[in-house]
Amino acid sequence: MTDWPPPPVDQVRTDSVKQPHHPMSVTTTLIQSGSLARRERQKAETRQSILDAARDLFVADGIEATTMRAIASKIGYTATAIYHHFRDKDTLIEELCVADFTALGKAMYKIGRIEDPVERLRTLGTAYAEFALANPSQYRFMFMTQQRHGPVDSDGRPTHKPDEDAYQFVFQTVSEGIQAKRFRPELENPHELAQMMWAGVHGVVSLWLTHADDPYIDWHPPLDTIRSMVNVMIRGALRQPTQ
Amino acid sequence: MTDWPPPPVDQVRTDSVKQPHHPMSVTTTLIQSGSLARRERQKAETRQSILDAARDLFVADGIEATTMRAIASKIGYTATAIYHHFRDKDTLIEELCVADFTALGKAMYKIGRIEDPVERLRTLGTAYAEFALANPSQYRFMFMTQQRHGPVDSDGRPTHKPDEDAYQFVFQTVSEGIQAKRFRPELENPHELAQMMWAGVHGVVSLWLTHADDPYIDWHPPLDTIRSMVNVMIRGALRQPTQ
Repeated sequence: MTDWPPPPVDQVRTDSVKQPHHPMSVTTTLIQSGSLARRERQKAETRQSILDAARDLFVADGIEATTMRAIASKIGYTATAIYHHFRDKDTLIEELCVADFTALGKAMYKIGRIEDPVERLRTLGTAYAEFALANPSQYRFMFMTQQRHGPVDSDGRPTHKPDEDAYQFVFQTVSEGIQAKRFRPELENPHELAQMMWAGVHGVVSLWLTHADDPYIDWHPPLDTIRSMVNVMIRGALRQPTQ
Repeated sequence: MTDWPPPPVDQVRTDSVKQPHHPMSVTTTLIQSGSLARRERQKAETRQSILDAARDLFVADGIEATTMRAIASKIGYTATAIYHHFRDKDTLIEELCVADFTALGKAMYKIGRIEDPVERLRTLGTAYAEFALANPSQYRFMFMTQQRHGPVDSDGRPTHKPDEDAYQFVFQTVSEGIQAKRFRPELENPHELAQMMWAGVHGVVSLWLTHADDPYIDWHPPLDTIRSMVNVMIRGALRQPTQ
């Protein structure tokens, strides 16, 4: 962090765009481009460490209680410096949501192409858990805290909605299964079935993320428990269990 | 809160105990007893409002971020006043755990007498969820936050352990079911089975407690979902499902 503070961002950009391109200035431009690339990389790295610090503090202390000053202080910056990178706390939260959504979206993308809805559901459960266990901070932030203060559109709906996307995916999958008469008649409310399936996987993940250090629980590897959970829930929900 | 601050507690107690009992003082003693009872009631009420405020702030902002000053301020007291009732933050957390444990313990007590382990498990799941939904703040505090800083004994184990008790209960129940060959052979690790059953119920409760206000989920009544979850998990886990 020895290069802090970076040069004013607007000035760097203006230099590189407005520099006239005549032969004598090629070398100068290349040097400036190298310098610009380095600065852009540093800027991206700084933004990333701010985002990481913010996510950790939001999870540990709550979004409301976390100030921009505390985020800056966690990585050794002044409160003023952090505002070079994020206009305000809402902007920061917004970028955090977008980044985390992308990571989860990638995990779900391939699974959408599995044709059989029951097998899609089975694979989704495991992949969702793998994402959660590999990204505990993001998972805590997205699924284990109340996010009342994220950015909303004019109807008051969240503009970035990783949990909505995850929910719609499982809802769509169980709905197809219900239409194909795969599930028991008493489970044909797709909302209940989707919420149940989501909750089963979420339950293992979230207990693990809050209680993994507790000395009194002899933890079974959580990913194994997830697989058993998904198999048990699907077997218990199907009209004709395959095994 | 107009009677704040109360008289020093030691002085009140000393008065009532050491007052000599001769005929002339009976009336005086009765009046003092009435006054004492009123003061004790006020003291208990004050302690309760401190505990309630503390629990709310711990859940909202995290245990670490919550100061005794913030707790006092939430109910209109000074930081000094709150130390009349709780020596320090650890003492306050300790009392909160004991109170919440008692509430959950009562819910589990009767269920322990159900002889059939599978039926005990089924009833436990619903009762646990009913407790959680009726006591969302306690549930969040006990099961949805990392409690690294509660009171511990000389071996570093928590001295008050509502979650350990809940876990031991479900562990004991599934162990009996496994011994009686009720569960499928691949599910005969009692730790995995206990963690799975606990997680299923915890998952519905905790998703509801964090996402109930989200506009995009058409929530099925959570207690109905819990019942379906418990039935589905038990059916999927049994060697010979009953229905």
